[in-house]
Amino acid sequence: MIFLNPQRALDEMKQLRDLTSDENGNQRVVFTPTWKKAVDFFTAKVEELGLGWRTDPAGNLWATLEGESPQALVIGGHLDSVPNGGWLDGCWNVIAGLEVVRAYKLAGQRPPVTLKVVNWCDEEGARFGRSLFGSSAFSGFLDIEAVKILKDKDGITVEEAARAYGVDVNQAPLATREQKDIAAYLELHIEQGPVLEGLGLPLGAVLGTVGVERHFITFHGQAAHSGSTPMNVRKDAFLAAAKMAQEIYTIASRHSGVCTIGSCVTKPGIVTSVVEDCTITLDQRHLDAGELAAMWSEAQDAARRFAAEGNVTVAFGDLWKIHPIPFHPELIDFCDQAITETVGTSHKLPSGPLHDAAEVCRAGIPTQMLFVQSLRGISHNKIEDTKEEHLLASVTALAKLAEKTIEWLLKSHLVNHTIG
Amino acid sequence: MIFLNPQRALDEMKQLRDLTSDENGNQRVVFTPTWKKAVDFFTAKVEELGLGWRTDPAGNLWATLEGESPQALVIGGHLDSVPNGGWLDGCWNVIAGLEVVRAYKLAGQRPPVTLKVVNWCDEEGARFGRSLFGSSAFSGFLDIEAVKILKDKDGITVEEAARAYGVDVNQAPLATREQKDIAAYLELHIEQGPVLEGLGLPLGAVLGTVGVERHFITFHGQAAHSGSTPMNVRKDAFLAAAKMAQEIYTIASRHSGVCTIGSCVTKPGIVTSVVEDCTITLDQRHLDAGELAAMWSEAQDAARRFAAEGNVTVAFGDLWKIHPIPFHPELIDFCDQAITETVGTSHKLPSGPLHDAAEVCRAGIPTQMLFVQSLRGISHNKIEDTKEEHLLASVTALAKLAEKTIEWLLKSHLVNHTIG
Repeated sequence: MIFLNPQRALDEMKQLRDLTSDENGNQRVVFTPTWKKAVDFFTAKVEELGLGWRTDPAGNLWATLEGESPQALVIGGHLDSVPNGGWLDGCWNVIAGLEVVRAYKLAGQRPPVTLKVVNWCDEEGARFGRSLFGSSAFSGFLDIEAVKILKDKDGITVEEAARAYGVDVNQAPLATREQKDIAAYLELHIEQGPVLEGLGLPLGAVLGTVGVERHFITFHGQAAHSGSTPMNVRKDAFLAAAKMAQEIYTIASRHSGVCTIGSCVTKPGIVTSVVEDCTITLDQRHLDAGELAAMWSEAQDAARRFAAEGNVTVAFGDLWKIHPIPFHPELIDFCDQAITETVGTSHKLPSGPLHDAAEVCRAGIPTQMLFVQSLRGISHNKIEDTKEEHLLASVTALAKLAEKTIEWLLKSHLVNHTIG
Repeated sequence: MIFLNPQRALDEMKQLRDLTSDENGNQRVVFTPTWKKAVDFFTAKVEELGLGWRTDPAGNLWATLEGESPQALVIGGHLDSVPNGGWLDGCWNVIAGLEVVRAYKLAGQRPPVTLKVVNWCDEEGARFGRSLFGSSAFSGFLDIEAVKILKDKDGITVEEAARAYGVDVNQAPLATREQKDIAAYLELHIEQGPVLEGLGLPLGAVLGTVGVERHFITFHGQAAHSGSTPMNVRKDAFLAAAKMAQEIYTIASRHSGVCTIGSCVTKPGIVTSVVEDCTITLDQRHLDAGELAAMWSEAQDAARRFAAEGNVTVAFGDLWKIHPIPFHPELIDFCDQAITETVGTSHKLPSGPLHDAAEVCRAGIPTQMLFVQSLRGISHNKIEDTKEEHLLASVTALAKLAEKTIEWLLKSHLVNHTIG
């Protein structure tokens, strides 16, 4: 890969940041003028390179370097950001992906397989509340009738916002046609967590995206005057709910997963009354479906036990769930090798956040993600950052992973040389 | 007390209930037409008995049976209720008090001391947020400049609402003049808690009103993604706050007081983030000032310990406090005796809620309260109730307590027989 120039990608990344950020952070919210600036920046770079690009019915943008085979290796990411977002989240994937394709293009020979860079449409879901819009349209898991009527805070629907940028979202389900001829998918992403930084490692091979069980748990006791009600006759909903706080750490530890109580709401919620109703949210994540199911089951058992101890009742409600999506075993190995070759030490870890790669993987396409360290584990914030040396290394590792994947596709006869 | 007729008081109480309640409960909110109906009902009964009455500068209504001495034993209560309130809270004190005075009046002889029934103005504070309006004006603890500008939900001030019923609240501080010639004060009240019902006892002698320490405690951690943040690096403000839930039961038990966490607020409070800020309210009550101070001190120590364990910080804020107000030792004994003579068994207990009696006691007047059992410990609700046999017994016990108090005043030379 003698034409690979990670510094060039980093320079482009900084140009894009300067073009699309203000004092509060990056503002590439989907279907807005600033987001369009980012898209135009990217397509200009694609055109400079002499490559073609087009937008699919879900607004995903595909840049293509034709190869010996029409079957393609795709590298993806997303140019959209949350409001006041970081400079790297999603964007770096696209810019680094383009650099890898550029290296093949500059080499002057048609690559053995077609190479594509995809900018997935509205990964963040920050404006309308539905993340992974474009990639779920691609995978066939988007319910467009339910999603197109979602509104932003100004009352503008997905349908209206997309139309202003030439996308008819009623056609979005046709994006599944893009699956044809895609042989494998790679995605580089900042970790958005503190694991690699904690280990002192620049890069990690992602095992898959974890499954999520998301529920609310409501304890129901009885409101009673804080002055006149003896402690031993209280039916204190907060007492029962609060016991869950420590319990979820025990459950997470037992299964090596993660559990989070993100919200606690008390009613009547006044200083002079015992809490009658206490509702907490519980978010549990694990890469293994069986472990995930066990974590949720144990949480319910604990909640019932604490309710009984406190003479209150408990009810459970569903918020959302998704199964674990493990990535491709051979691609995980290639990623691990590419990282070791680039920076000496690798580490395999699951991804807690979802990514477009999960949708591609759900479509049955061999998929792999590469993480680069996030400083302080912080993302979705203007202080999101990654050391430059790590960003540079991530481009090299992504290129090595692409090389290994192409070799594997050819060796395994997973691509046909019907064109040549 | 051959002229005492508890059933007559109960009948009057039911008339008053029917006059001032609707399907949602009793509606005697201060300075409203329904409240005025209750006041007019009371003054009509006073006039029927041939007694005089007048209103003091704070809107307290005093009905007087002149005695041999101008120095007076006062029995008090409040005719106002919360919106959708119970039928007995505050009102029963006034009606039962009038029955005791009526018994003396019907006996045909001037009693050795003057007897008064007082209807304190706006005990509940339900409309403007400041309870014990009239009794605190009487005791000299009312800051009228701060209170008169308080508004109800329709924007009407205390000053405006009172003026419509002939009370100029700017004159309220002059109500302290009413302290002159008051030798002792008695108040019957429903318990508004479950203690007597739990013990199977109709009546209780009140030791005093408890002191209150009311604070908020804020734990500050760090928001972090629920999927990408390992459990062992989290700074989870909810985890630290939740540990307080059990701890306050330990503290309350150690000191035989009560502690309540009535509210818990989490920020950002979303399902996908570790809690960055968690604020709980803590209400602690005890009849002994030293024990109360120890409870608050131990709560702070525990909060600091839990914060340190969870790598978060903690801050404390004051909401409100009041010192314990113990009632008169000899009057407590008389009350205990009166109860034993009436129903066979007595019980001494503190009052968790505040009452007008606490203000009178603060003014240095020998003060005592008598509690009658509340069914299910419920008050401030239309289902508030007390067994009729207990209500009847409470009138008898109040009369006996009044007799004993008058004897004590005479025997102790606490009243002067300057008139007679």
